Amino acid sequence: MKIDNRHIDKIVLAAFEEDIGTGDITTNTTIPEGRLASGKFIAKEAGVICGMDVVARTFFLADDKIRFEAFVKDGDRVEKGDVIAEINGPAAGILVGERTALNLLQRMSGIATRTAEAVEKIKRTKAKIADTRKTMPMLRVFDKFAVRVGGGSNHRFNLADGILIKDNHIAASGSITAAVNAAKQGAPHTLKVEVEVETFEQLNEALEAGADIIMLDNMTNEMMKKAVEITAGRAKLEASGNMGEKDLREVAETGVDIISIGALTHSVKALDISLKLKMQL
Amino acid sequence: MKIDNRHIDKIVLAAFEEDIGTGDITTNTTIPEGRLASGKFIAKEAGVICGMDVVARTFFLADDKIRFEAFVKDGDRVEKGDVIAEINGPAAGILVGERTALNLLQRMSGIATRTAEAVEKIKRTKAKIADTRKTMPMLRVFDKFAVRVGGGSNHRFNLADGILIKDNHIAASGSITAAVNAAKQGAPHTLKVEVEVETFEQLNEALEAGADIIMLDNMTNEMMKKAVEITAGRAKLEASGNMGEKDLREVAETGVDIISIGALTHSVKALDISLKLKMQL
Amino acid sequence: MKIDNRHIDKIVLAAFEEDIGTGDITTNTTIPEGRLASGKFIAKEAGVICGMDVVARTFFLADDKIRFEAFVKDGDRVEKGDVIAEINGPAAGILVGERTALNLLQRMSGIATRTAEAVEKIKRTKAKIADTRKTMPMLRVFDKFAVRVGGGSNHRFNLADGILIKDNHIAASGSITAAVNAAKQGAPHTLKVEVEVETFEQLNEALEAGADIIMLDNMTNEMMKKAVEITAGRAKLEASGNMGEKDLREVAETGVDIISIGALTHSVKALDISLKLKMQL
Amino acid sequence: MKIDNRHIDKIVLAAFEEDIGTGDITTNTTIPEGRLASGKFIAKEAGVICGMDVVARTFFLADDKIRFEAFVKDGDRVEKGDVIAEINGPAAGILVGERTALNLLQRMSGIATRTAEAVEKIKRTKAKIADTRKTMPMLRVFDKFAVRVGGGSNHRFNLADGILIKDNHIAASGSITAAVNAAKQGAPHTLKVEVEVETFEQLNEALEAGADIIMLDNMTNEMMKKAVEITAGRAKLEASGNMGEKDLREVAETGVDIISIGALTHSVKALDISLKLKMQL
Amino acid sequence: MKIDNRHIDKIVLAAFEEDIGTGDITTNTTIPEGRLASGKFIAKEAGVICGMDVVARTFFLADDKIRFEAFVKDGDRVEKGDVIAEINGPAAGILVGERTALNLLQRMSGIATRTAEAVEKIKRTKAKIADTRKTMPMLRVFDKFAVRVGGGSNHRFNLADGILIKDNHIAASGSITAAVNAAKQGAPHTLKVEVEVETFEQLNEALEAGADIIMLDNMTNEMMKKAVEITAGRAKLEASGNMGEKDLREVAETGVDIISIGALTHSVKALDISLKLKMQL
Amino acid sequence: MKIDNRHIDKIVLAAFEEDIGTGDITTNTTIPEGRLASGKFIAKEAGVICGMDVVARTFFLADDKIRFEAFVKDGDRVEKGDVIAEINGPAAGILVGERTALNLLQRMSGIATRTAEAVEKIKRTKAKIADTRKTMPMLRVFDKFAVRVGGGSNHRFNLADGILIKDNHIAASGSITAAVNAAKQGAPHTLKVEVEVETFEQLNEALEAGADIIMLDNMTNEMMKKAVEITAGRAKLEASGNMGEKDLREVAETGVDIISIGALTHSVKALDISLKLKMQL
Repeated sequence: MKIDNRHIDKIVLAAFEEDIGTGDITTNTTIPEGRLASGKFIAKEAGVICGMDVVARTFFLADDKIRFEAFVKDGDRVEKGDVIAEINGPAAGILVGERTALNLLQRMSGIATRTAEAVEKIKRTKAKIADTRKTMPMLRVFDKFAVRVGGGSNHRFNLADGILIKDNHIAASGSITAAVNAAKQGAPHTLKVEVEVETFEQLNEALEAGADIIMLDNMTNEMMKKAVEITAGRAKLEASGNMGEKDLREVAETGVDIISIGALTHSVKALDISLKLKMQL
Repeated sequence: MKIDNRHIDKIVLAAFEEDIGTGDITTNTTIPEGRLASGKFIAKEAGVICGMDVVARTFFLADDKIRFEAFVKDGDRVEKGDVIAEINGPAAGILVGERTALNLLQRMSGIATRTAEAVEKIKRTKAKIADTRKTMPMLRVFDKFAVRVGGGSNHRFNLADGILIKDNHIAASGSITAAVNAAKQGAPHTLKVEVEVETFEQLNEALEAGADIIMLDNMTNEMMKKAVEITAGRAKLEASGNMGEKDLREVAETGVDIISIGALTHSVKALDISLKLKMQL
Repeated sequence: MKIDNRHIDKIVLAAFEEDIGTGDITTNTTIPEGRLASGKFIAKEAGVICGMDVVARTFFLADDKIRFEAFVKDGDRVEKGDVIAEINGPAAGILVGERTALNLLQRMSGIATRTAEAVEKIKRTKAKIADTRKTMPMLRVFDKFAVRVGGGSNHRFNLADGILIKDNHIAASGSITAAVNAAKQGAPHTLKVEVEVETFEQLNEALEAGADIIMLDNMTNEMMKKAVEITAGRAKLEASGNMGEKDLREVAETGVDIISIGALTHSVKALDISLKLKMQL
Repeated sequence: MKIDNRHIDKIVLAAFEEDIGTGDITTNTTIPEGRLASGKFIAKEAGVICGMDVVARTFFLADDKIRFEAFVKDGDRVEKGDVIAEINGPAAGILVGERTALNLLQRMSGIATRTAEAVEKIKRTKAKIADTRKTMPMLRVFDKFAVRVGGGSNHRFNLADGILIKDNHIAASGSITAAVNAAKQGAPHTLKVEVEVETFEQLNEALEAGADIIMLDNMTNEMMKKAVEITAGRAKLEASGNMGEKDLREVAETGVDIISIGALTHSVKALDISLKLKMQL
Repeated sequence: MKIDNRHIDKIVLAAFEEDIGTGDITTNTTIPEGRLASGKFIAKEAGVICGMDVVARTFFLADDKIRFEAFVKDGDRVEKGDVIAEINGPAAGILVGERTALNLLQRMSGIATRTAEAVEKIKRTKAKIADTRKTMPMLRVFDKFAVRVGGGSNHRFNLADGILIKDNHIAASGSITAAVNAAKQGAPHTLKVEVEVETFEQLNEALEAGADIIMLDNMTNEMMKKAVEITAGRAKLEASGNMGEKDLREVAETGVDIISIGALTHSVKALDISLKLKMQL
Repeated sequence: MKIDNRHIDKIVLAAFEEDIGTGDITTNTTIPEGRLASGKFIAKEAGVICGMDVVARTFFLADDKIRFEAFVKDGDRVEKGDVIAEINGPAAGILVGERTALNLLQRMSGIATRTAEAVEKIKRTKAKIADTRKTMPMLRVFDKFAVRVGGGSNHRFNLADGILIKDNHIAASGSITAAVNAAKQGAPHTLKVEVEVETFEQLNEALEAGADIIMLDNMTNEMMKKAVEITAGRAKLEASGNMGEKDLREVAETGVDIISIGALTHSVKALDISLKLKMQL
């Protein structure tokens, strides 16, 4: 499981343009040319690491003479105080890449950590934890990668690669049946059709219309249990609606297949990781 | 206080490319052409709103026939249940812009809300709350705007428009004095020189070297009080180091001029805002 | 069914950069400023028109004072000699947009025409005509739109929004079963799983592994008939392999659900359409 | 004769963005990391190969550990069944680059093959086969390269690097003489002036005005023969107008210097070439 | 004679990105929102104006509520103190566009002025003043436009739209004859062939090889006079080599057709023009 | 002191796109593939060299097999006739990069040379020579680098990284005091506040308002002398206004700290440097 360099480079180079601008004036004026440095990345709290390839590539793009060695890999759990990587090379390049690398690493590790906590809570149920499109603009590839690294699953990447018929689509089409038929007719046959429902009546209509996945929107656990019975395996069921604040184990035990959580990516607490550098004098 | 459309457009169009891809397949197949819709943006929790211009522009870029009317302006405080804006126009365009608009609005309002809380805590002290470069890659203009909207101040935007001499620069230069002189010599005369210090000895050296701003890194409140006395107005003092977890009032009462808080932007809790749409049948 | 202006603009502006370069030197030196012109688009052969919105937008981007009126809409069948649109406005802008507009219109109409022929051949069977990824680089949105306009269906848009397990994936995974399981485990749950098979043994394994769609690769019509019987509705069946040279009606009558044809887009015969202009003197 | 990597990279990377999107989900989930593969490119029909450098660069850009060895070079004629290249390296990279490489190779070889057929037909006459601006948007550099590889000549690349005065320019200027003078006066002296004529009267006026090249538009072979006599070497003569459907030898034997054929690039039949891969187990 | 907005926008928006960056901090903090201003553009020295459309478009791009009225048009001669344009509208937008507008206007007017001086010097000879490729990177469209506005002619725009065979090409080809033949064979037939010569022997060889234009490199006026005689109208002759420092009238009187001067664009003295603003209080 | 490759590449690749376009048609048709060449860069007049890294990178980007060896480094003074660098490698790549390399090198050396002359004139005074924002659009990083190489200092890079309150800002704010307060309140605390004044009254107000830098606009030397006395070290003083035409030594001797000169970059005389190539036969 990796992110293509094409995606990393696009984000990191844009981040450099933003963060470095016309040049790091402090480093340019105070660090003698050719000065080397080395440093350690240290976890300041426990969590699941994600983004090591991104960090490695960030420093490579800052200066290809920098050497970066990772001691953990994406998905590994670390404890407070663990040294997770070492770096050495030209000091100027390291200083220039530091903030971009840490900003990305801390966010991705924060997402992976929270996802792993959610996955842990529902272990030994058949449910999967999934993400949503509530990601940071331009960072969706990274955000969704971090969810997978944390043990979660990805929902559709964007509006083009998944069909999700919501209340408004139903209202505009006339009925669930009409909307499902329209989607099956007009969309590529390679995509499943998902329908959002709020009542059992809607659930039944969606099942009869041949929906592949049904999103149970803001249902109580009791309702979801009943929805599982009604569905009887005819479609995948997805629990949705402020799942970030629910007891996930109880949700999973209703028998749903997927629990999608917007907060995994819309309200991220960065995992605290620092880079402790030493100049080579 | 506004964000240039140039910046908004760059971010929103990149977000559209990411979120819409080759087209919203659900909307394209289920929403009849020309169908209109209207809707309300509702605050699901109390907070400070930020990003109304961004939302307005997002929908304009999605479809310039959409009408968006804001009932609050950036910086306004809202309560749970408040209707903060109305929208109406072509349903397809609204659905296509919805996720991008909400993702940005919720993040920016989350930042403004947390900043306002921090500003409130230190009111009637002379200190200012400031941000850092711990922002989301590519979103720095938005993140720092939200800090200002919340009543905070901005630290340097990037490595090119502010001088901040840290431990590594000092080590490489040989001394604080050498580093400050090098920066004054080589950098544009329009920039102030800031130095990060950890001890009183360093503080004294920085003051004598003529630093304009001194960052007190991870000092206790006691130490900061003493630093204020030593400095006696000769430079601005900035408190720094996990300020997100400190009692900000106590920090402010040490007499420092600026308190910079990375968590304002690196660990954002989105403000819960929803868009409730109605198709016009 | 429309193409977003975002996609049209990207392609048309790139085409302008290529075709106009630093300026149309002939027009700039010989056409007096402000000179107006008008013209007619005429079908020089019969076919299905596709790309009227693209043409309209192309001239708008060349000069927003140009007026373009379409007499047919995408999907309409025209005969040799039909006037399909009129244009009038600044002569320079029309001349500058002409080649780009015609190049796109002729290709898209060529694709729609050939697709419509294929669809006509299999009418009243349950099969659908579908496209492939054998499109012109950068023009896939246009090429696939033209297939839909011609009455066909779209296969996956790219490698990210559809799962198609081919012989190499099977070989690398160890078995069809292993590959299907890996895809179901690792890919978004919103995507169907398609497997390419060459034998009945593979077909059976794919069905048991729970494939949603099965591509019958280079099978004879006899084999496909038998595959339809074996499958008995448990999956969608897609006929593939030089379908551009087969008798499509016979293929459709085997009972397959989809017939995908690379030649629809990899070997396009442009529909002959001309623009006859008249200077306003 | 080569295409700059600058041009190849621009097109191939755009094609990757289109075809790979956020990642090849099938390959990512079913191909174990590090798995190697090897394969052969095989001509499925006879023709002239064009695009070997493009293919080599495409795989290099997909994964720089891929080794690609070409057994033919651009311009070589191959027969059905010929192995034209071998590839080996990481399977994932090969699968990711495969479609883009084949789409480009098959189009370019299709153009070169058709051009070579045209050139063959007129051999031992003094005429040259030339292309037009009827190319695929964004692919003009490739399309025109393929024409040269097939033995043809290039007409102007775009509206900025060639002067071609057509009926509309003449109408707007007042006369052929006026238009030619205006072009000679206003355009760089490094460009020749070409004029399109439909009658002998126009031909005579163009010659007297000092046109360097004269395009004979939709003239019969008889008329062209007479035009050659009238011109008597005072200008180059170019035959134009549905040349794709004419007997080229007869056209060439009229004595014209250039025969330009839009169909070489606007209606391309892809040359059938396949890549047969084998996983290394 | 105009520059396409496509070219202006590309340059002006890049200039804005460079000059405005993340926002005009002075204007944003000191100019009250909605404040209007008006101003006059005043020539501080005599010269030929060039760039009025560029200035108009620059302010339109800065804020489309700004009104700009030009009192002169490109090519007009102005005297010291002349008011050449007026502007009024939102003060913030005017201040933000001011520097970019003036930087471009002053450079373009400087080029036009110097070109006009050169043209004036050679008036009533048959020679034309031409530019070179010694322009500022990215500004070639503007630089060459200014030369035309000043009454000069353009040499080739770039390496793709003109053939100029220099000493190195000759050395590599083996002879002038070989080089001219190679160019005539391989290049589009729409381009003239120019050859640089230093001796009469080379001149004769170039004439016999059929060169369309011959560049006389660093010849004395005496030599050029003889070259004109030798050539006797068989090719255009271009005087070249530090022409910026020669007596242009004497050069023109040798009978050459073109005098190309690198200094027109490589060493530009900006024409002094100021914008005098008044806030509307 | 170096320019990041990120900045060089952006400018050089854009210059290539402009100057090479679809390919160097002369070189492609006349230089045999694989032909090597070598050459020397020779100063044709005395001056200060600037841009050697830019030249080296330009040829690397043209063809990475080119070897470039510099005999001088940026800031070195050369005399007429000095060989400043040698180059060898593939002839085609050298010819393709030549014009871009020379255009940039000659401009940057021209700026460095003129800056060095200004610095020389004021030596042993305490004043510094500074640049302005009167640079060529898109080339500001290069222009300002050349000023530093010539021994000058940089003023703010753009409108975002320096505060300069001019007459219009003062008028809009109501007073110098109001404007300075607004800037101090709203701008990052890392930026100094500069105010432009024309009278002693304004100077006094600016000093009392706490301006860090005061620009003396178009004052006579007498006035500046008095301004120095009044200021008495409370702020830095910057002399401004047609300084390119003043006796800089006399200005410096008034005691001002900075002399900013627009002409350093708005009216550049290129330093004459040539590349003399030899084909390897």
